[in-house]
Amino acid sequence: MADSMSDDTFHNDRPNAWGRWGPEDEAGAMNHIGPEQVKRAAGLVRTGEVVRLAQLLSHRTPVPRHRASLQHFMGRDGGDYAAGAKRPGGFQFAEDTVVMPLHIGTHIDALCHAWCDSRLFNNYREDSLRSTSGATRLGVEKMPPAVTRGVLLDVVAHRGRPLEAGEVISRADLEACLCASGLQLEPGDAVLLHTGWLATQGGVADVDFNTEPGIDHAAGLWLAQQDVALIGADNYAVEVLPFAPGTVFPVHQCVIRDFGIPLLEGLQLEPLVRTGRHEFLFVAAALPIVGATGSPLTPLAIL
Amino acid sequence: MADSMSDDTFHNDRPNAWGRWGPEDEAGAMNHIGPEQVKRAAGLVRTGEVVRLAQLLSHRTPVPRHRASLQHFMGRDGGDYAAGAKRPGGFQFAEDTVVMPLHIGTHIDALCHAWCDSRLFNNYREDSLRSTSGATRLGVEKMPPAVTRGVLLDVVAHRGRPLEAGEVISRADLEACLCASGLQLEPGDAVLLHTGWLATQGGVADVDFNTEPGIDHAAGLWLAQQDVALIGADNYAVEVLPFAPGTVFPVHQCVIRDFGIPLLEGLQLEPLVRTGRHEFLFVAAALPIVGATGSPLTPLAIL
Amino acid sequence: MADSMSDDTFHNDRPNAWGRWGPEDEAGAMNHIGPEQVKRAAGLVRTGEVVRLAQLLSHRTPVPRHRASLQHFMGRDGGDYAAGAKRPGGFQFAEDTVVMPLHIGTHIDALCHAWCDSRLFNNYREDSLRSTSGATRLGVEKMPPAVTRGVLLDVVAHRGRPLEAGEVISRADLEACLCASGLQLEPGDAVLLHTGWLATQGGVADVDFNTEPGIDHAAGLWLAQQDVALIGADNYAVEVLPFAPGTVFPVHQCVIRDFGIPLLEGLQLEPLVRTGRHEFLFVAAALPIVGATGSPLTPLAIL
Amino acid sequence: MADSMSDDTFHNDRPNAWGRWGPEDEAGAMNHIGPEQVKRAAGLVRTGEVVRLAQLLSHRTPVPRHRASLQHFMGRDGGDYAAGAKRPGGFQFAEDTVVMPLHIGTHIDALCHAWCDSRLFNNYREDSLRSTSGATRLGVEKMPPAVTRGVLLDVVAHRGRPLEAGEVISRADLEACLCASGLQLEPGDAVLLHTGWLATQGGVADVDFNTEPGIDHAAGLWLAQQDVALIGADNYAVEVLPFAPGTVFPVHQCVIRDFGIPLLEGLQLEPLVRTGRHEFLFVAAALPIVGATGSPLTPLAIL
Repeated sequence: MADSMSDDTFHNDRPNAWGRWGPEDEAGAMNHIGPEQVKRAAGLVRTGEVVRLAQLLSHRTPVPRHRASLQHFMGRDGGDYAAGAKRPGGFQFAEDTVVMPLHIGTHIDALCHAWCDSRLFNNYREDSLRSTSGATRLGVEKMPPAVTRGVLLDVVAHRGRPLEAGEVISRADLEACLCASGLQLEPGDAVLLHTGWLATQGGVADVDFNTEPGIDHAAGLWLAQQDVALIGADNYAVEVLPFAPGTVFPVHQCVIRDFGIPLLEGLQLEPLVRTGRHEFLFVAAALPIVGATGSPLTPLAIL
Repeated sequence: MADSMSDDTFHNDRPNAWGRWGPEDEAGAMNHIGPEQVKRAAGLVRTGEVVRLAQLLSHRTPVPRHRASLQHFMGRDGGDYAAGAKRPGGFQFAEDTVVMPLHIGTHIDALCHAWCDSRLFNNYREDSLRSTSGATRLGVEKMPPAVTRGVLLDVVAHRGRPLEAGEVISRADLEACLCASGLQLEPGDAVLLHTGWLATQGGVADVDFNTEPGIDHAAGLWLAQQDVALIGADNYAVEVLPFAPGTVFPVHQCVIRDFGIPLLEGLQLEPLVRTGRHEFLFVAAALPIVGATGSPLTPLAIL
Repeated sequence: MADSMSDDTFHNDRPNAWGRWGPEDEAGAMNHIGPEQVKRAAGLVRTGEVVRLAQLLSHRTPVPRHRASLQHFMGRDGGDYAAGAKRPGGFQFAEDTVVMPLHIGTHIDALCHAWCDSRLFNNYREDSLRSTSGATRLGVEKMPPAVTRGVLLDVVAHRGRPLEAGEVISRADLEACLCASGLQLEPGDAVLLHTGWLATQGGVADVDFNTEPGIDHAAGLWLAQQDVALIGADNYAVEVLPFAPGTVFPVHQCVIRDFGIPLLEGLQLEPLVRTGRHEFLFVAAALPIVGATGSPLTPLAIL
Repeated sequence: MADSMSDDTFHNDRPNAWGRWGPEDEAGAMNHIGPEQVKRAAGLVRTGEVVRLAQLLSHRTPVPRHRASLQHFMGRDGGDYAAGAKRPGGFQFAEDTVVMPLHIGTHIDALCHAWCDSRLFNNYREDSLRSTSGATRLGVEKMPPAVTRGVLLDVVAHRGRPLEAGEVISRADLEACLCASGLQLEPGDAVLLHTGWLATQGGVADVDFNTEPGIDHAAGLWLAQQDVALIGADNYAVEVLPFAPGTVFPVHQCVIRDFGIPLLEGLQLEPLVRTGRHEFLFVAAALPIVGATGSPLTPLAIL
């Protein structure tokens, strides 16, 4: 498999960050987070409150129709002892196994999750993703943990209401939210977008994954050009659905594939919003599953 | 299911923390971590270096014989496009699913993982764990994230060599390690024990899960009585194997079931040890799988 | 585990076949199929036509809401070669894995699948079914293959139309169908009931598993008392849903638990019906999964 | 996807049966089994004895190192009732799920399992097998059930001992076995080879899948040219391992890919051998899993 870039003739003529951290880089925009960003972020801790930003994971966690739900199997449980299983030395235990799609609940998209024109971020070839090995390039295990400043952009507060299906969040909206919070984006920030969508969908029996509010291509490109390290939202795809006519997942293509920025989807932001804080220490670390295209995880806002 | 304690007649006559946080508590020793502990820990960040303490997860990750390895399946990958799958709007993506035992790699034991005498921590009944529902009490989704001071006790440095199979780490050893680092344990600390075992086993084809160095019951009890929030180690069970004669997983029984302290197993500590730091901001957050007895996770030391 | 019947005090006061083949028997009514039944059935082959009676299995195969669908994962496929996987000696191969609930599609219920009053068929205790071991008694691997006379009872022809949701098939209906076909039931027969339900549900997006036509308790008891070896139908539970008031799966309780007769659910009978044959060589063999409560399978009618 | 043969320029210059049943055929050598073969086979039933030829399936069933073992999970079991689960109307039930590689235990290889030069049997392209869809051509659901004459070739009796690792079964050996049994091969026969290997490996803790006795290429080609419908054996690959120098799975390539003959691997033949019968009614029906490359199954010899 030729996955070196040395003699490669493919040219990405869109704005991108390919080669910015060298031809063998697999960390992408997470490289924006250096020791200074970590220290700055740690210095934001004031009250010591910790907010979990993850949805619960179970067979009830909504998934698109083409994915299966999480299955949780007990290999040993209290019932087995009730039914007479031996308790050597008085000891009992329980254990379990999950069958779990990796893009479920609150999860991060690895840089190998989405691409176009047969090339992934940093010019890696799509041939590097196979059934036999998973992703040999840009797998989620190559993604450094995010320990950085989190910036909450509260589009719900900006609009004065939760956003609706198909409602676009533009660059101007993002700038207005920043202005309202008195903050400016800095390289390495984790930007979290509050759309209200997950809360709105909370009571819906059969979630429609084909429509949601989110950012458009211009907003995604602008964020990427601010050198943010990751972008998250309380919806399922970060970007607005349906897409603009003639495009397919344009924000995924721009942000993940061109700029190497992971997306954090399915965030639960209401508890954070209620605190009134817009900047905080943000920590998110994926499971290091070799060759995986994403991972559920439990991001934290440390206030 | 009667899982209230109100009219319960069972009495735990061993040292324990039952009822300490009320009869309905499911967080156990994690309650020792309050805002002050979080703030103190954040204040330990000096260099901004972030160290991942997790093993890679794959079908090669060692598991005991009675558990199956992780399986990682690609539902869509680059090969499918190479074979002619359509690329609407130029867009391509890959996704995947794991079959994963929850006590694999670097993982945390939830408080429902181990018990004795039919009673779990805080007097919950073992009947609360069933195949149909998982753990309705003390499941891993009830465990708060750990954001606290991490204290590395380097038993390898203390001994001058990696520990051997079956080698006991005593309370005196722990105290000597603390003394050497100039630290004292405080309520809410996350104690990480460096035994060298994971590194030693790194090249072993067929890991033997029946023998390893670790703490004995007295050491576990002492740690519990210092009000630590969690105990981790770079071995598979934290405690020494084989057990002292006549006992079965005595540290699990004491620490998890009597004191409500989660165990963090399979840590990869060598990169942390090499930094020379003994205290740091420690962050670990399990996947919130409803009713699960544990979860792989990626703990971080933030220096 | 005390699973012997010798000193047992439980008494089943309903009509049953417990003890009929000895206290250690796990084959139940399949014992009615002896060499004479096999030879008689083989003698029914006239045209040499073979009809498969199984539904296709895929993620589209309908399952009740509390079960997950089948998942089929390719571990290696043609796409991997298209993407560059090596072909040693020119050789290529593909392989795959399923996650499959065992009561899916066309499947047989093992005798451990359903019971009441804590006792399974032949007085085995429910404690013999645990998470750790599956069913140590009456598992599907203990079920002999069915090679016997198949008798098609065409209730659709009898009614002149496919049956409707909740429509009862009574003993009188069964006798009328037999009369119409000029056949009499004999010990060891495999009785297949044509309700038309599977064909009716074929185009339904979201199958309702709570209502269907099927036999009532009296019809099930009558079949059991004819010493049939198994009962199948082209619906999901053989018996009528909803149940008669005050009962829960009364046919399952009577037929499986009291008489040791396996149920064959989800049969695809239309191709057989079209042949006009009412008796034939019937062959059905479950996967011998140790301790399983059922198995998908491909029953055959050999005409 | 262009999977029609009409304008195809690929030419298979080895002996083969491509196109023999038309360019759209997916049943291959199973087409040799017509109504006459079925009737002839049914006429072989003499004693009415039925012999199961399948291994038990469990986590103990041996699999090659690159495959995971079967996992069997109880979703509901007797322990749950022992722990207090409700029993509406006195009714109880148990159900379960498997995670199962499809080439495990006694299983059949579908015609899409193995190929070379990017072309499957009948000139179908390897691109027809993808992660997203499985095999769209030659999947196991396209394979007709085998209801035909079974012919046991007892190489163990011929040799006077169980065969050893790497021991070749030649065309002359097959002819000698046939001669000893007084039988001749006829089109549509299911040929079962008794090597003794499965019995020999029965007590082996860690089965070596890289060496076994079996047929060589010339023997496989000869069987194919006799127009047999399928070839089975009591080993793991039917063919001798290791391969002849310079070849990789030559029998798979010849038999499956060139002649469209499915292989039946991991047969348990000792109970059949003990009956002394060499011809019988043979029945084997795979699970109709859409797009699968194989299926465990329970073949029967009906004597």
